[in-house]
Amino acid sequence: MRVKLKKNERIDQLYSNNVSIIQSNDVFSFSLDAVLLAEFAQVGSKRVKNIIDLCSGNGAVGLFLSSETSAQITMVEIQEKLADMAARSIQLNHLENQVHVVNDDLKNTTHYISKDSVDVIVCNPPYFVNYETSEKNPNQYLAIARHEIKTTIDEITKISADLLKTNAKLFVVYRPDRLTDLLLSLRNHHLEPKILQFVRSKTTSEANMVLVEAIKSGKPNGLRIQEDLITHEGNDYSGKVKRILYGETN
Amino acid sequence: MRVKLKKNERIDQLYSNNVSIIQSNDVFSFSLDAVLLAEFAQVGSKRVKNIIDLCSGNGAVGLFLSSETSAQITMVEIQEKLADMAARSIQLNHLENQVHVVNDDLKNTTHYISKDSVDVIVCNPPYFVNYETSEKNPNQYLAIARHEIKTTIDEITKISADLLKTNAKLFVVYRPDRLTDLLLSLRNHHLEPKILQFVRSKTTSEANMVLVEAIKSGKPNGLRIQEDLITHEGNDYSGKVKRILYGETN
Repeated sequence: MRVKLKKNERIDQLYSNNVSIIQSNDVFSFSLDAVLLAEFAQVGSKRVKNIIDLCSGNGAVGLFLSSETSAQITMVEIQEKLADMAARSIQLNHLENQVHVVNDDLKNTTHYISKDSVDVIVCNPPYFVNYETSEKNPNQYLAIARHEIKTTIDEITKISADLLKTNAKLFVVYRPDRLTDLLLSLRNHHLEPKILQFVRSKTTSEANMVLVEAIKSGKPNGLRIQEDLITHEGNDYSGKVKRILYGETN
Repeated sequence: MRVKLKKNERIDQLYSNNVSIIQSNDVFSFSLDAVLLAEFAQVGSKRVKNIIDLCSGNGAVGLFLSSETSAQITMVEIQEKLADMAARSIQLNHLENQVHVVNDDLKNTTHYISKDSVDVIVCNPPYFVNYETSEKNPNQYLAIARHEIKTTIDEITKISADLLKTNAKLFVVYRPDRLTDLLLSLRNHHLEPKILQFVRSKTTSEANMVLVEAIKSGKPNGLRIQEDLITHEGNDYSGKVKRILYGETN
């Protein structure tokens, strides 16, 4: 099947799992955040039958996960152009039987998927509070992906708590800057944070990302701080990131 | 002046700042947590005129800080035996004009010190929730120092918020296990977490301590995750910890 590219779109590869993704600098391109979230999320167990990717953008996280699981994957994306890119990437990778896109506001996800029925949720949410005064990207697609214009972290954790089975897991990538907001919101919705992994460019840098695993109705505390993930060595990616991006390193 | 040691007490030295501390394995001995908290707390500014050490135990943190500041330091300790050890250590170091001990429940601290008047608070609190079922040290001194028998993290953050000036800082050492409890409690009492530093024995280990800086009435978020503090190299302390403990390394 031929998949049609639209204006300014290109196809990028994630070599480590041989996935092709339609990208566009005008609309949305996935970043390292999505790759690291997909690597961090545990979806390999046979008990994982269904996965939801909230704020899926052009579908990067769900596409990356498809090679690690036979579970059904549902992407939820509010922006029509991005959901359309994801749908064509699904065709491009012949994943129509495993991966589906819902183009809707994530707060309507329970219209499509039953409450208390989901095994894993992954989410790479907008990171920035939508203050009236905050400087936003003039490109509306990117502004919505980055700022809490159409949703908030609290809405995301609420719908996640609704959808997940008891003891099922939510995996989120976020900015350390708002870690307190995230942990509060998770606790408030009975999604107990159990694992944090901080991501830094080098060991001496402040963390620039945090990966979070939370368990629905998990008992309070018992939080574990994993080994840091270091992304760079000099000006190059670290061995760890190269393995994630390209598979075995030379 | 001669300071009298009681049964099973000994005098230990912190070589890096030439402080002597009365210790007792039967009652209380300071640990690396206290040393790292003292190192983490910023007290060197001339604007810092008064410091409170809550849950001061045998006074280790306050004694360590005395060499870094000319501020008045008030230790608050509920256990009489520990407060007495701290008082004798103050004499031993000739610090009677700078350091004082209050032997009382920390919730009464406002009886001694005005609200909204304190420049810095440091605290090495009991780490463990006092569940009925939790296994506690049969030694009551150690049980009180480690479990939330006489106070809780929420009581500590509440009294800290009462005592601190606006924009003044609280420094806490805690266990990552309960980081969510701590961050929630800080946020609830308008002590905004601004810096976290995780402590690990080696880079590949999970964190076993976390150091937290919070600012009274600080605006939400803006949390920074500093470079990890690594405590060991093989079976020995790391160079960083040796410098903190012994001063310049050989």
